Amino acid sequence: MKRPAANLRFAFSPKSVCIVGASHHPEKIGHAILRNFLQGGFAGAIYPVNPQGGEILKTRCYRSIADVPSSFECAIIAIPAEAAVASLEECAKKGARAAVVISGGFSEVGNKRLEEKLVQIAKKHSIALIGPNCMGLLCTSTQVDSVFLPTYKLGRPKKGEIAFISQSGAVGGCILDLASRYGVGISKFVSFGNASVIDESDLLQYLADDEETKTIVMYLEGVKDGKKFLRTASQITPHKPIIAIKAGVSAAGNAAVASHTGSLAGSAAAYFAAFAQSGIIRAHTLEDLFDIPKIFSLPRTRGKRIAVLTNGGGNGVLAADAIEERNLKLAQFSPNTISALKSFLPTYANAKNPLDIIGDADAQRYEKSLQLLIADKNIDAILVILLFQTPALDSSVTEIIAQAAQFSKKPIVCVSTGGEYTEAQRRQLDSMGVPTYSSPSSAMRALSKFIAYCENVCP
Amino acid sequence: MKRPAANLRFAFSPKSVCIVGASHHPEKIGHAILRNFLQGGFAGAIYPVNPQGGEILKTRCYRSIADVPSSFECAIIAIPAEAAVASLEECAKKGARAAVVISGGFSEVGNKRLEEKLVQIAKKHSIALIGPNCMGLLCTSTQVDSVFLPTYKLGRPKKGEIAFISQSGAVGGCILDLASRYGVGISKFVSFGNASVIDESDLLQYLADDEETKTIVMYLEGVKDGKKFLRTASQITPHKPIIAIKAGVSAAGNAAVASHTGSLAGSAAAYFAAFAQSGIIRAHTLEDLFDIPKIFSLPRTRGKRIAVLTNGGGNGVLAADAIEERNLKLAQFSPNTISALKSFLPTYANAKNPLDIIGDADAQRYEKSLQLLIADKNIDAILVILLFQTPALDSSVTEIIAQAAQFSKKPIVCVSTGGEYTEAQRRQLDSMGVPTYSSPSSAMRALSKFIAYCENVCP
Repeated sequence: MKRPAANLRFAFSPKSVCIVGASHHPEKIGHAILRNFLQGGFAGAIYPVNPQGGEILKTRCYRSIADVPSSFECAIIAIPAEAAVASLEECAKKGARAAVVISGGFSEVGNKRLEEKLVQIAKKHSIALIGPNCMGLLCTSTQVDSVFLPTYKLGRPKKGEIAFISQSGAVGGCILDLASRYGVGISKFVSFGNASVIDESDLLQYLADDEETKTIVMYLEGVKDGKKFLRTASQITPHKPIIAIKAGVSAAGNAAVASHTGSLAGSAAAYFAAFAQSGIIRAHTLEDLFDIPKIFSLPRTRGKRIAVLTNGGGNGVLAADAIEERNLKLAQFSPNTISALKSFLPTYANAKNPLDIIGDADAQRYEKSLQLLIADKNIDAILVILLFQTPALDSSVTEIIAQAAQFSKKPIVCVSTGGEYTEAQRRQLDSMGVPTYSSPSSAMRALSKFIAYCENVCP
Repeated sequence: MKRPAANLRFAFSPKSVCIVGASHHPEKIGHAILRNFLQGGFAGAIYPVNPQGGEILKTRCYRSIADVPSSFECAIIAIPAEAAVASLEECAKKGARAAVVISGGFSEVGNKRLEEKLVQIAKKHSIALIGPNCMGLLCTSTQVDSVFLPTYKLGRPKKGEIAFISQSGAVGGCILDLASRYGVGISKFVSFGNASVIDESDLLQYLADDEETKTIVMYLEGVKDGKKFLRTASQITPHKPIIAIKAGVSAAGNAAVASHTGSLAGSAAAYFAAFAQSGIIRAHTLEDLFDIPKIFSLPRTRGKRIAVLTNGGGNGVLAADAIEERNLKLAQFSPNTISALKSFLPTYANAKNPLDIIGDADAQRYEKSLQLLIADKNIDAILVILLFQTPALDSSVTEIIAQAAQFSKKPIVCVSTGGEYTEAQRRQLDSMGVPTYSSPSSAMRALSKFIAYCENVCP
């Protein structure tokens, strides 16, 4: 008999879905999920099920699963726990190979017996079951989207190469929303809740084989099977970076985990040892989960010599401090770079690193300087700080930097800090593939994690 | 003879200003400064000076300082360095008691002799001279505003109780812009550049006596007179908190300082010892300069027992971790609180800390829960995490929390993380006086600094 995980593709790319608990009421989860599928552009067949029948969002609704006139590949179940268990059996009869059980009320509230029933049905029919007690999936290529938070409140990110799997729907939602705001692309998102059948290691393995995914991010409270996790992750990290946060590392956090996803949080030290051993990059904060993954779209480098390009001297000083704090090195410009810089920089600018091209720098001065830094063999990576607030710097500089970054074999990251105008420029950069940060310290934090991965984990 | 610093009030609250170098060209600094004064609502007399005469922005412009038909209290000088020195003498003849010299080209480019001339003139006439090589002042009560960055690019914050003095105009601009974006109020901003006459200690002393200022923030590269600084700061911190970042703490950063503001960066260890001795709260990053000061508007507390209120379980777990990481304590709710919570929370919610009131929580559930936490004597401070993305939570919750915070004798801080919608709610909270943060870890970072100040520095 097939393992349920072997059917995971039917969760991400089903030809047909049955939405059990599709609701007539706009504020209900089952309504939001149906709307996501209809409005998101899912190309397969959609079968809403609701005992009232009729139409929801102009779509024919069936009174029972048995009434659905065709078999279907994936079931999305958003009804109370007891009924969810019964309906899974019904879905199996209709040929479902995957199921997303949104419903809560299982082991996380002590109802282990009911969860065990769910597991037995899934295993008997080799159903790749995600959940229960979760938000389910978002796949930006197939438009499978069971994330039931309204799109006007939680933006959906564009297609991209970062996959995010999260034991917490809420944390996952925050990161999706951030990604949407900054135009950072996501391949797949999975909120997997109680992980009763499909666990974090199954998802890791699936994403390892997924061509749309280049970087994997995880929010973990506990893992179901430590050895399986260690083995799976170790095989993946040399090819695809895994960035993970372990939540519940403190005594208080550990206790909080039990009542959240019913997981055993386990010893934090054991997790960190496993992360180190398997090459997982450890994230410490919610910010890390967004800041670190996006830097992995950049060209790999093993060097630590960083150049700083800025139009604000103070920010350059802070960058020099941040570089040293993260055990990176402030690059020494080559003599060629220095003389070329001197040929066009104002006399009151110093042609050294951090390179302050002064508050009156325009986009062209940034462009010329950046090209020289890209060409300099003494430099491994570049931090560009932009004070968009100056009168001389127009928004063409974002295009210039994105273009240069696209052809650069060195990683280039940007920092800008400020209000509405600056935020808009920053989002522009991120959406063009240049990772941006709100301070030199957060940029160097991400860059140091990236360089450590390139040095220690890449083959 | 009076010390120049004794005339500092003429810089912040002059009855009349002369803008030397007021320009007809909109992209010039002297034009931007004149526009700031005219459009910002400065109530005093304004005398623009430009050799071409005529009118700028419909305001009569004088060909020379001598032509100005009246004496004036403050001069703002934005012309090349050599000419700036000559014009200061002219301004002295017109009775100027304060001057802001925007112009660069002095000690920061090795031109110490010229700077010395400027200092001599200022001292001879007891002129409180700010600069040179700076952006000067912004005072939100008098609308003195020499910050020459365009208002559409750099927002001006509303009136408030935080003063920010910065050796770097660029860093200062970033923080002003952030404050404007989040509706955080500022009393005064000073970019003091080379600190040739008025130094950081003079400004500290002025702000210590300033009733509009309750919290002082500093970006420092070096101090002019260490003993004076230590003495001044030590006297202030028990009454007004001082939050400061020392830039140039690394070897590389230290070297970068010299070419930036011509300061001697000095030993980082000596600075940190001085900060500790004088009760200055140390900021480490650009984020800290915005995140930490705003928490000081809250009621003082010496307790470390933190309650967490959230509608997302994962975020609650991260908060528990962040509390322990910062050596704070997760509060134990009193039996009364627990039974009162149980009376209205859904059965699947656990009435313990971190308190997850579940994803279907509405504003009223937040309100009831928050009132109980405010009343509980086992709790010293409250972290409210808001996932605005859920369907059940409408924007009325911001008003509810702001109201509760206003009457609470305990500090209340909020966390929310996400996209456009969430950011808008977050800004709303900040502008109503509830400090917000982008993650539990950054909130607990600020709160721990606040509690440490209350415990160790307050009398």
